[in-house]
Amino acid sequence: MPTQFDPPSGTRDFLAREFETRERAFALIRAVFDRYGFEPLATPAFERLDVLMGKYGEEGDKLIFKILRRGEHEGTGEADLALRYDLTVPLARVAAAYGSQLPVPYKRYAMGPVWRADRPGRGRYREFTQCDLDTLGATSALADAEVISAVNDVLAGLGIAGFRFSLNSRRVLAGLLEAFGVPAGAGTGVLITLDKLDKLTPGEVTAELAGRGLPEDKAAELVAAMTAGDAAERISDALKSSEEGSAGLDEVNALLSLLAGQLPAGRVEFTPRMVRGLSYYTGPIWEVVAKGVPGSLAGGGRYDHLIAQLGGPDVPATGGSLGIERILLILPPGEEGHTRLDVAVTVMDQSYAARSFAFAAAARSAGLRASVYMGASGKLGRQLKWASDQGARWSLIYGAVEDEAGSVTVRDMSTGEQAQVPAGELAGYLARLAAGG
Amino acid sequence: MPTQFDPPSGTRDFLAREFETRERAFALIRAVFDRYGFEPLATPAFERLDVLMGKYGEEGDKLIFKILRRGEHEGTGEADLALRYDLTVPLARVAAAYGSQLPVPYKRYAMGPVWRADRPGRGRYREFTQCDLDTLGATSALADAEVISAVNDVLAGLGIAGFRFSLNSRRVLAGLLEAFGVPAGAGTGVLITLDKLDKLTPGEVTAELAGRGLPEDKAAELVAAMTAGDAAERISDALKSSEEGSAGLDEVNALLSLLAGQLPAGRVEFTPRMVRGLSYYTGPIWEVVAKGVPGSLAGGGRYDHLIAQLGGPDVPATGGSLGIERILLILPPGEEGHTRLDVAVTVMDQSYAARSFAFAAAARSAGLRASVYMGASGKLGRQLKWASDQGARWSLIYGAVEDEAGSVTVRDMSTGEQAQVPAGELAGYLARLAAGG
Repeated sequence: MPTQFDPPSGTRDFLAREFETRERAFALIRAVFDRYGFEPLATPAFERLDVLMGKYGEEGDKLIFKILRRGEHEGTGEADLALRYDLTVPLARVAAAYGSQLPVPYKRYAMGPVWRADRPGRGRYREFTQCDLDTLGATSALADAEVISAVNDVLAGLGIAGFRFSLNSRRVLAGLLEAFGVPAGAGTGVLITLDKLDKLTPGEVTAELAGRGLPEDKAAELVAAMTAGDAAERISDALKSSEEGSAGLDEVNALLSLLAGQLPAGRVEFTPRMVRGLSYYTGPIWEVVAKGVPGSLAGGGRYDHLIAQLGGPDVPATGGSLGIERILLILPPGEEGHTRLDVAVTVMDQSYAARSFAFAAAARSAGLRASVYMGASGKLGRQLKWASDQGARWSLIYGAVEDEAGSVTVRDMSTGEQAQVPAGELAGYLARLAAGG
Repeated sequence: MPTQFDPPSGTRDFLAREFETRERAFALIRAVFDRYGFEPLATPAFERLDVLMGKYGEEGDKLIFKILRRGEHEGTGEADLALRYDLTVPLARVAAAYGSQLPVPYKRYAMGPVWRADRPGRGRYREFTQCDLDTLGATSALADAEVISAVNDVLAGLGIAGFRFSLNSRRVLAGLLEAFGVPAGAGTGVLITLDKLDKLTPGEVTAELAGRGLPEDKAAELVAAMTAGDAAERISDALKSSEEGSAGLDEVNALLSLLAGQLPAGRVEFTPRMVRGLSYYTGPIWEVVAKGVPGSLAGGGRYDHLIAQLGGPDVPATGGSLGIERILLILPPGEEGHTRLDVAVTVMDQSYAARSFAFAAAARSAGLRASVYMGASGKLGRQLKWASDQGARWSLIYGAVEDEAGSVTVRDMSTGEQAQVPAGELAGYLARLAAGG
């Protein structure tokens, strides 16, 4: 039941445990991108409204969160700013704004929240994290290969099991339409139908293709070629009759050969029926699927004129996007249990509070997470319960006996064993414990 | 000159170098808070409008960025959501929403952007990062001391020079008004005036106090006591006549004694004239100033009823806020120059592209940042210029000669020295170089 204290519909609060799970994944992703020489870019949460509007199609425009003008203009009910909808339009703006200051090629990654006023649902949020890496200014297949290789390293590093890349090219698809004699004008519709081969039966797809104006025998032939066990070979053969198709095939083979040495065998597969919805791709396209996971975990491709269409300079570009929210859902389980503290320091009497406070500082100087008990109870049992709730590995006890002896009791919370340590030697003692010595 | 490609007024793009400077500071801050057992909390960028409105006073309300309703409701010109204005109101909401699931005390930190439609100016932004740490549910002075100690560790860790804490208590201020016979009702005005002792002369402050209804001799006496070299002692003496003042003094002294063992001598000073503008504080208050830096770098205090006023449960609370944007401006300079790559791999001929791509992977497996040249030039000089622009320490060269020999040339970019390394031994060779061996 949502209450008045829940976050707004489609958004989430991340308390410690979930925050840390996400942060660990983000840190690994950043480290991989960094190792490939991609540099970080952060842009504001909102852009001027006119920068965003008209870039996402009519349906996309409706999902943009608009920000009301302020002060005397608030009453107009007009918006002048809007929350960013993705990380690509801001990239185009940055490429236009800082053009000559950016390295060539400009390899950047961006990771951060975007906002879409979508109907919230299972795994669909209004505030969610996107993670993009893109190379602007390089036509080389090396740039495409690098993006794919980096995404591969991320997914492998996160421990995702059984994932593989489907690779295709927009030019292969164009050649395919040509080779199978698809009437001009029906091309886009045919591709949209072919994209359904994962969901519909071959017969249903054939019928839908026929409905789009493709002769029935051509449609059946195309579907048979696409769904055959040796689809890649059969399509490759068919493409040789088309100049565009041959060029696309060369593109795909160049990428496969660059990646062959780096990625495990079978990790990347030429998949002629893979279309990807977005129409702005101009060259190689790819997506990542994993066994038992619906949808794709990542996807991307070359989009040589999009940056210009989005208001930036006309530079060749290739990139990819990690489906972070989906990936986070299938991450293999990490360490169980949430540990707040390594060392919990009891306060047996308020007159010892300053000593206890100093012991916590000593533990921190030994590199451990440490804090003092702040409750009202003077009972050891109660304080040890607190220590245990914090996940503490050790408790420090300092009462009248220890005060007399100038020592502190170090209690191992898992075994209950206790050691008396001279107060002045505490930091060193804890550092040795922390090092496992 | 702002252009259409600039980010919206009052916001910033962070390209690699600035992003990394900020990230390094953020990472240090997180590490310190973590060591004290504060746990992270992230809340959405926006809240429901009614959660925010009325919480920041009339002036604050005007600065809230409001989000237009969507779909069929867009035409109403009404807002239903708003960008968060600070991290405290979201904390109150979280405390209300997850009450019993949160540990007691709940020690959390939050670091992230907030948005205010302020007039942008030097060092004043509409999107800026806030960084708060707070402990809910503890009345103990240990909680206040811990916040101050953590803030101290952050500033020391960041290398901020010559900073110190001014410490006072709301109860000291209340006692002061009582001890100097300030008429009921004039109290707040008198405190506002005393807060100006840093900017106005003692004579000006005395005159302003008199204008607020304080007898001239009392005003002069108060100002003299506040500005004396031994102000802390004189005020302490005066406070003994007031019950509230004595309690405040005890509060201050308890904190000073907890911190005495941890912070360098002179780092924290009882500063009776320090008021802090916000009226919601109920106990100890503190702020951090640094030599030569206008304004404060951090501030905080105890605010035992604020969480309830903001819509949360009525829990005791104490916390602090780091003035991150201001702190970032005075960070001591880090390493100069922006290094994108450790290893730049040339591509002397497209037929060697796959080999070069594999060499880059070998360098990455040795823990180095590496990438291949993606430009069109086949000239070594041009490619080495690119390598140098990337800040690369080593370049790898693989041409016809190396292909013949089955080796790769490793060039030290600072000395120009070159070594021939068998291709199969490259990763190990680079790992040794990286380790400085």
